[in-house]
Amino acid sequence: MQDVVIRTLEKVQLREPILVEGLPGVGNVGKLAADYLREKLGAKPLATIHSKFFPPQVYVSEAGIVRLVSNDLAYWRAPAGAAHDVLVLGGDYQGISPEGQYELTERVLDYCAQLGVRQVFTLAGFAQGRVVEEPKVLGAATTPALVETMKKLGVVFSRNDPGGGLIGASGLFLGLGRLFGMEGVCLMGETSGYFVDPHSAGAVLKVLGKALKVEIDLTALEEKAKEVDRIAQRIHDAEQRGGEAGPGSSGTSREDLGYIG
Amino acid sequence: MQDVVIRTLEKVQLREPILVEGLPGVGNVGKLAADYLREKLGAKPLATIHSKFFPPQVYVSEAGIVRLVSNDLAYWRAPAGAAHDVLVLGGDYQGISPEGQYELTERVLDYCAQLGVRQVFTLAGFAQGRVVEEPKVLGAATTPALVETMKKLGVVFSRNDPGGGLIGASGLFLGLGRLFGMEGVCLMGETSGYFVDPHSAGAVLKVLGKALKVEIDLTALEEKAKEVDRIAQRIHDAEQRGGEAGPGSSGTSREDLGYIG
Amino acid sequence: MQDVVIRTLEKVQLREPILVEGLPGVGNVGKLAADYLREKLGAKPLATIHSKFFPPQVYVSEAGIVRLVSNDLAYWRAPAGAAHDVLVLGGDYQGISPEGQYELTERVLDYCAQLGVRQVFTLAGFAQGRVVEEPKVLGAATTPALVETMKKLGVVFSRNDPGGGLIGASGLFLGLGRLFGMEGVCLMGETSGYFVDPHSAGAVLKVLGKALKVEIDLTALEEKAKEVDRIAQRIHDAEQRGGEAGPGSSGTSREDLGYIG
Amino acid sequence: MQDVVIRTLEKVQLREPILVEGLPGVGNVGKLAADYLREKLGAKPLATIHSKFFPPQVYVSEAGIVRLVSNDLAYWRAPAGAAHDVLVLGGDYQGISPEGQYELTERVLDYCAQLGVRQVFTLAGFAQGRVVEEPKVLGAATTPALVETMKKLGVVFSRNDPGGGLIGASGLFLGLGRLFGMEGVCLMGETSGYFVDPHSAGAVLKVLGKALKVEIDLTALEEKAKEVDRIAQRIHDAEQRGGEAGPGSSGTSREDLGYIG
Repeated sequence: MQDVVIRTLEKVQLREPILVEGLPGVGNVGKLAADYLREKLGAKPLATIHSKFFPPQVYVSEAGIVRLVSNDLAYWRAPAGAAHDVLVLGGDYQGISPEGQYELTERVLDYCAQLGVRQVFTLAGFAQGRVVEEPKVLGAATTPALVETMKKLGVVFSRNDPGGGLIGASGLFLGLGRLFGMEGVCLMGETSGYFVDPHSAGAVLKVLGKALKVEIDLTALEEKAKEVDRIAQRIHDAEQRGGEAGPGSSGTSREDLGYIG
Repeated sequence: MQDVVIRTLEKVQLREPILVEGLPGVGNVGKLAADYLREKLGAKPLATIHSKFFPPQVYVSEAGIVRLVSNDLAYWRAPAGAAHDVLVLGGDYQGISPEGQYELTERVLDYCAQLGVRQVFTLAGFAQGRVVEEPKVLGAATTPALVETMKKLGVVFSRNDPGGGLIGASGLFLGLGRLFGMEGVCLMGETSGYFVDPHSAGAVLKVLGKALKVEIDLTALEEKAKEVDRIAQRIHDAEQRGGEAGPGSSGTSREDLGYIG
Repeated sequence: MQDVVIRTLEKVQLREPILVEGLPGVGNVGKLAADYLREKLGAKPLATIHSKFFPPQVYVSEAGIVRLVSNDLAYWRAPAGAAHDVLVLGGDYQGISPEGQYELTERVLDYCAQLGVRQVFTLAGFAQGRVVEEPKVLGAATTPALVETMKKLGVVFSRNDPGGGLIGASGLFLGLGRLFGMEGVCLMGETSGYFVDPHSAGAVLKVLGKALKVEIDLTALEEKAKEVDRIAQRIHDAEQRGGEAGPGSSGTSREDLGYIG
Repeated sequence: MQDVVIRTLEKVQLREPILVEGLPGVGNVGKLAADYLREKLGAKPLATIHSKFFPPQVYVSEAGIVRLVSNDLAYWRAPAGAAHDVLVLGGDYQGISPEGQYELTERVLDYCAQLGVRQVFTLAGFAQGRVVEEPKVLGAATTPALVETMKKLGVVFSRNDPGGGLIGASGLFLGLGRLFGMEGVCLMGETSGYFVDPHSAGAVLKVLGKALKVEIDLTALEEKAKEVDRIAQRIHDAEQRGGEAGPGSSGTSREDLGYIG
């Protein structure tokens, strides 16, 4: 079989579309953000990507229907007058080998180049190894001009982070994108690295919305973030009380623990 | 060499054949079922599949004859009047790398598509991590209609199982099969996951027989299942007695232990 | 680059040559036997095989000259009247991945088929996990007729060994050889599996010499075997005495230990 | 995508250029030496090499600009009258799989052959596992004549080192280079193997400068070496004092430890 199989579901003409990539990774920040964007925009399915560089796996829906793991492109037509339509790339996995990462990224970029893509935003999490109350959005870009533009939108370009560079799709879409004449920005939401982090995804989307000049209603994502916070807090409290091990402290923890159970 | 080499042993015309896949996996349920089906049907060799995605290994028969590891297709002509002939895919190994899994599955599906296959049954075990007295057969399928059909044959479509999806040939033959316009069902016999499980293979074949409208005499398989049960019971008893370590208990265990020894 | 690069050093016409393969493996038996055969026959270099399936490595000679790791074919013209010339395949490594094993074996077989090879002997060690005083030579073959022929030369075809089949080049040259219409025999010298074993290589060559109707002077190999035996014995003795740890026992061990030191 | 992508930045005609390779490895000796040579010569960018055999990674500069990991060729035009221009190959990584090592080396050699390269110097470290005060430069070469030439420049050709051969790019560029009709020398600076070692890189460059008849000012490299020595010494001293754990000894270590902190 072909190493990467891209099936086009609908033939479309798009206006200088911008590609937004968000695949599974640190805190699942990139995937959460891309999936949420796709849903809120009401983006439509454009193409499905299968590859031998993904695991040999199908998912089974609650109704018992199998679906081969994939990446997926969706498109959104911006309102009349806007300069750029948007393509969103999401999916179940990044390529599971280094070579697979290169092959997948290159094939998707080639496909997008034919659709007229000249600019790429990649979304990711940046693991801080500690709880992050107010996640900043760190950036990396392909040109000094883009760095300046993103700084004005509140993106932090740190001298030291990310020190070891970016590994995986979010970096590769920029690095290989340059070979296709595309410019791009990676937006990295700070996150602990221990939990799935919708809060960090929200911070990333706030910046992205400004950059794309698109209104994104973040209410549902913030609800999800609060829910994750509540669960994390409860686990934390329970562990604290477990450590104290006194009779009085256990009196107040029953409901909370029951909630988690 | 070609990545996958399929040697046709006999040129045949088949009536809308249904492919049944059963390769080594959890509890060896799929392989046991497919090999038993092949034998009971008296299916004839159709093609041998060699591949660099298998281990570089030959088996040696008791007579000293070497045989390169392979997968194998056999065919069975259904009686006149029946709508579908049957192809059985069995073998020594699944592909040993993710890429190998994809390549092998795609090549076999392509070969089968040329023989007119439009429907696939994949057979597998589902590890429950505990002893299963009466194994249910769990299912996953490519269409809602197939889900309904299989439910009527007693297949269980659980909301939560298999939660992480299916990994390996049994899932991939359905997932990639869809790209060939094939529909399909995966039948998963519950099993402990600790032993080879002919009992679970029997449960799977009961359902498959109904689906294919083929009578399969399961006597020999049930004999084999009882034999495995007896050995497992004896090991269990011996371990129990070993734990008690009393003079009285050892009196009744001698013959049993001798049997195993 | 090509996956496997075979450079022909001399163009030759050979009389129905027989291929003898011996590469590194258990006890290095196969490689020791093939290298010794090549030297004793005075076989001449025919072709050098480089491949990306070998490690990315060069060896450096005592004179400081680098040599890329390789496999090598040598040829020997049998005396007038003999039916078969001989090709010997030796080298530094087997392919280091399963796919590499298949690719290398297939390419070398293809090359040999063009030289007229119809019969293959593969040489290997069979690890018994215990010291073997008088190594038997176990066999596996591609046809019942060859099994019978080899039995007459003293080769043992055991019902149970090798139980798990043969893994690596010695099995693959037979298994893939069948796809080239070649028949073949694997000769496995029993060995402990703990040491390089020239004694076992000698046992294999005794059988091979009879099969090829070639006189092979084994004196030098037996000398080497005795030397290995002496070293192994001395290590064994030293360990024994170390365990006793008495003043008297140490008195007799000094020279021996000094010899090793 | 192509396995290896070489982008030419400038079309040049060179006079029988000599290739100097130095990529990351033991003590980073080869890379330090090649990067220093490139800088001191003022060599100009010639070509950028990307490959799926590198990690899927971008680096981010202090200004926030991403750069895909790569290898790079630079050229230096020797003064009028000199026989050979020089090509320097450096970069972020060697190929990360054995197959990748072969593919990358072969492609770069092919590219260099077209530029007229007939001679190769590869630079590397040789790990001694102990502190090396005055690093010798060990050698390996493709011809006896080159061995003699290099001996006169002080290179040591040891009967036993490197015993296991050379693994990686520095060996492969010589081994595969022979297949392109190139001759070559590997210069290995002795190093502990525990630290990045500019001192060893300096020793290698001293020899290389003589071989290329090029003046290389090593002042900056020696400064760097002294700095590494000072840090290593301080860590060593601190550990020594930590072992003594007396109140008096801690009195003298404060400043030193503060320097490191």
